[in-house]
Amino acid sequence: MFQESPRDPTRNGVLRAAEKVAAILPPTPLLPVEIRGVHCWVKAENLQPIGAFKIRGAWNRLSELTAEERTRGVVGVSSGNHAQGVAWAARKLGISARIVMPHDAPQMKLEATRAMGADIVIYQRPGEDRDAISQTLCAETGAVLVHAYADPWVIEGQGSAGIEIAEQMGREPSSIVVCCAGGGLTAGLALACPSSVIYPVEPEGWDDVTRSLAAGEILAVEDNPPPTSCDALQALSTAPVNWAVLKERASPGTTISDAEVRAAQRFAFANLKLVLEPGGAAALAAALAGKVELDENTVIMLTGGNVDPAKFAAVISSSD
Amino acid sequence: MFQESPRDPTRNGVLRAAEKVAAILPPTPLLPVEIRGVHCWVKAENLQPIGAFKIRGAWNRLSELTAEERTRGVVGVSSGNHAQGVAWAARKLGISARIVMPHDAPQMKLEATRAMGADIVIYQRPGEDRDAISQTLCAETGAVLVHAYADPWVIEGQGSAGIEIAEQMGREPSSIVVCCAGGGLTAGLALACPSSVIYPVEPEGWDDVTRSLAAGEILAVEDNPPPTSCDALQALSTAPVNWAVLKERASPGTTISDAEVRAAQRFAFANLKLVLEPGGAAALAAALAGKVELDENTVIMLTGGNVDPAKFAAVISSSD
Repeated sequence: MFQESPRDPTRNGVLRAAEKVAAILPPTPLLPVEIRGVHCWVKAENLQPIGAFKIRGAWNRLSELTAEERTRGVVGVSSGNHAQGVAWAARKLGISARIVMPHDAPQMKLEATRAMGADIVIYQRPGEDRDAISQTLCAETGAVLVHAYADPWVIEGQGSAGIEIAEQMGREPSSIVVCCAGGGLTAGLALACPSSVIYPVEPEGWDDVTRSLAAGEILAVEDNPPPTSCDALQALSTAPVNWAVLKERASPGTTISDAEVRAAQRFAFANLKLVLEPGGAAALAAALAGKVELDENTVIMLTGGNVDPAKFAAVISSSD
Repeated sequence: MFQESPRDPTRNGVLRAAEKVAAILPPTPLLPVEIRGVHCWVKAENLQPIGAFKIRGAWNRLSELTAEERTRGVVGVSSGNHAQGVAWAARKLGISARIVMPHDAPQMKLEATRAMGADIVIYQRPGEDRDAISQTLCAETGAVLVHAYADPWVIEGQGSAGIEIAEQMGREPSSIVVCCAGGGLTAGLALACPSSVIYPVEPEGWDDVTRSLAAGEILAVEDNPPPTSCDALQALSTAPVNWAVLKERASPGTTISDAEVRAAQRFAFANLKLVLEPGGAAALAAALAGKVELDENTVIMLTGGNVDPAKFAAVISSSD
């Protein structure tokens, strides 16, 4: 299912990635927030130029490609945020990019990815095997597969957010609440902040990492998972290169419902004046629902804000 | 109409205000943005704890009150953002606050002001004289009037945003695009950044500062002004203490339509992942409409994000 990783990600790799990211992207804001009477922090990765943290890992991976690899182009697989990250980095480096995206990806993610010049290949989310499609594309053209999470450079790139946080706070956070799909960001933050408690948060029914942590081995999402509004958090399982970090460092996982996610989107709208997509609000949802412990040095990751306007309007207009 | 100002605002006063604000509030983010092909900056004052820059002036004014003045309480007049600023500062200092607000103030501004413990006095926007009401309240209780803009401490407090911007950029901006109602923020920024071009932006029909700058003397809004979505920008005229700065430092003013404001709110939603109220999007509207000159060191002020969810949903759901 996953290509064997050429190496393990390291904290030194995260530090190198943080330097590379800092050279082209200003730090995202760390903003104060009061949740359930506790004054803590949110890291607003939705304010990245592509509206999501994925720009970090994509930039770190693509900028490490050799000149020869760059001529062959890259292939990415993503529902939209990694897609935009790869498209952004590819455009900046003059690399051609093909992105395999599901038919039900949010319209604004499809359009933004296309607007940055990437070539999009659509697959049907239930039925077609996106990994097989991407491998075929790579075999045809010799392009380099840029996996959304099963890649040490991508993990280290996402971890650069943790280095920024520690610089902004003047210390490592006591804990980090972070949404978890394949575990790229979660593993990266764990490497970046070795003294921080790491709380992974997953949508109900898409809790493969929570179950894996409980079982002590990688488990996949069970067959016929329920629908979730969190289009960005629908990875079917973590990968060995992520798991090697998660099993040592992550606290037991937590799940959140779609209703809790909507409540978090409304909270961010009203109290933080920030636009969050469902997956980008997942960690905040767990915090608001009292599912993780908070203290004054806790950081809650707000990971993305790429949501179609009609869907966002429906969420903020209701109170369900 | 305005009480005589006890003194003129000064750049040293702005520098002192900036120190006081920095002691209790983290700097708001300065974020990169691309507008009409120009890479410039937005200052996200909508991310203040009260969702607007008004927290600066209110804090600077209330924290300068003597112990005796504090026991008498304060009175503010505001459609909602200055109201929240005064309520926030009063709660923090243990001062009682009464706020005179119009009947048509946005619901979320009324609720947020009340939630911070302020006593709210409603007036009818056409018909009742808010200045007379506030003066009566002050006369009854001896409370100190905290004017929304005709006050040197308030002007210097708002100007602290300009000191932050210069620190964040490592230089004063070439130009600042800023919405203008009474001229508190505009005058404060002009004092903070003496080398920056200052572009005031007003809603169509509420262009008293634009007309004043053209005439060389203070003119009020003409009778029966048209409706505007910018509830925060409905001051009827600037005051002498603001005008003394504006007449020397402001560029000719610019006006924007409600449609241009809605386009700016949609741009901020889609491209910046920020929630802006109509008045808070006015400067961005002028920039997007090509009504002010932009360069790579231009800063556009995003001044507030306190908008009722149903109204925001309607704006982002349409394209008019």
